[in-house]
Amino acid sequence: MITSPGNAKIKEAVRLRQRAKARREADAFITEGVRMFLEAPLSRIREVYLSDTFSRSLKGREGAVREKLDMLRYETVSDEVFQKISDTCSPQGILCVLQAYHYELEELLKGEAPLLLILEDIQDPGNLGTMLRTGEGAGIDGVILSGTVDPYNPKTIRGTMGSVYRVPFYIAEDLPDTIRRLRERGICVYAAHLQGGRLYDDCDYTRGSAFLIGNEGNGLRRETAKLADLYIKIPMAGAVESLNAGTAAAILTYEAARQRRNAG
Amino acid sequence: MITSPGNAKIKEAVRLRQRAKARREADAFITEGVRMFLEAPLSRIREVYLSDTFSRSLKGREGAVREKLDMLRYETVSDEVFQKISDTCSPQGILCVLQAYHYELEELLKGEAPLLLILEDIQDPGNLGTMLRTGEGAGIDGVILSGTVDPYNPKTIRGTMGSVYRVPFYIAEDLPDTIRRLRERGICVYAAHLQGGRLYDDCDYTRGSAFLIGNEGNGLRRETAKLADLYIKIPMAGAVESLNAGTAAAILTYEAARQRRNAG
Repeated sequence: MITSPGNAKIKEAVRLRQRAKARREADAFITEGVRMFLEAPLSRIREVYLSDTFSRSLKGREGAVREKLDMLRYETVSDEVFQKISDTCSPQGILCVLQAYHYELEELLKGEAPLLLILEDIQDPGNLGTMLRTGEGAGIDGVILSGTVDPYNPKTIRGTMGSVYRVPFYIAEDLPDTIRRLRERGICVYAAHLQGGRLYDDCDYTRGSAFLIGNEGNGLRRETAKLADLYIKIPMAGAVESLNAGTAAAILTYEAARQRRNAG
Repeated sequence: MITSPGNAKIKEAVRLRQRAKARREADAFITEGVRMFLEAPLSRIREVYLSDTFSRSLKGREGAVREKLDMLRYETVSDEVFQKISDTCSPQGILCVLQAYHYELEELLKGEAPLLLILEDIQDPGNLGTMLRTGEGAGIDGVILSGTVDPYNPKTIRGTMGSVYRVPFYIAEDLPDTIRRLRERGICVYAAHLQGGRLYDDCDYTRGSAFLIGNEGNGLRRETAKLADLYIKIPMAGAVESLNAGTAAAILTYEAARQRRNAG
């Protein structure tokens, strides 16, 4: 059992939790909790850490966690040390270091009529995670990220509730070029915009569609919005001036899902 | 200028920020920031506090904040004292104590075909605030709360982005009785439920409709779900097992808004 916070592996895990730069250098990220452990693809798992208390709770018990652990190497660490690598106040006591994902844009475009989210400058990690989760629920083919918070931020990972393992995401270094490639593939790019001329439910999303969603406070950058085929508006009653970015993403992707279901 | 954190008014403001019980006893709540100040109904404002820095920034300048302040009594406090009453790390420097709201259920039922959210056991204050904001955007007539976090929690208030001033909310002490009253008024009560038999977009929400949304982790209580007229399901693709409660509320209320717009 590792009991020293000075242990090299522990120090590395703490760095992975705290710093995007460390995650990039190690090409790895951390997921926490039983559910995230059970859903993690075996081939991606580099390290598994159990807290002493969690490890004892497994003694003599069968179940999915035990079965998966038997296929892996894992380390038990003291509860104090576990608390240091955990991002939560009351950790469940199980945590993995996983190999990062690297999707090509093509992997998001395999379907006949891809449904995509393009997220620009989203800064709230939990919100980003929720958008992956909701997007998976709506059946999107992938998420394109530009200038957002690190998708491997522990709060993002937690917010995805496992969708990070399943929804392909592509980090666009050159968003205008990426959008051009989408349009070349016949995908219509919609900008969710307060100045949108068209009501969001007055468009046909059964064809290839991508929704551009901007930063929580400032919306889309002007030069990005210009690249869209169409500005769409989610109408707002009362004195509401804007919706939460995650809420907008949910309304748009679920409208697309509704149209596709009813057309199918 | 108040410079002592021991000042009686300051101590009371700190209690109002920290404790739901103090808010109940004082029948008051706190809102922070310029926007919340500008949107606050004059008749509800009991106290206004400005930080020294914010107060200086107003000197010799005109504008909406100055104009509204001229209609009120306010106190300037040192930046250190302001930080104590503020709920944020980088406060904007303006904060109000307001008289709490007390809506009767009837006030939510004035419309011809009321559209309502019924939120049970929602525990995340920011999420609750976002639901009020999204609900206002979708045009709901009000929110019924049962067993949720205090709607006057500072994080809820912040999440509402001002909707707390405009969306009527009713705290149901006896939820079954409240639901019975809705049904007597011809309002159809839908439970968002993983076991829902009917797709959410396969119902007519142009008539009076109320959406029951349960706790983030556990969903609706069984006895509450039983009171619904219909269980509805938001379909989920991939391996997603549930949606965030706020996301579900957004999808349902915006589907109702869509139907009502297209029927109108």
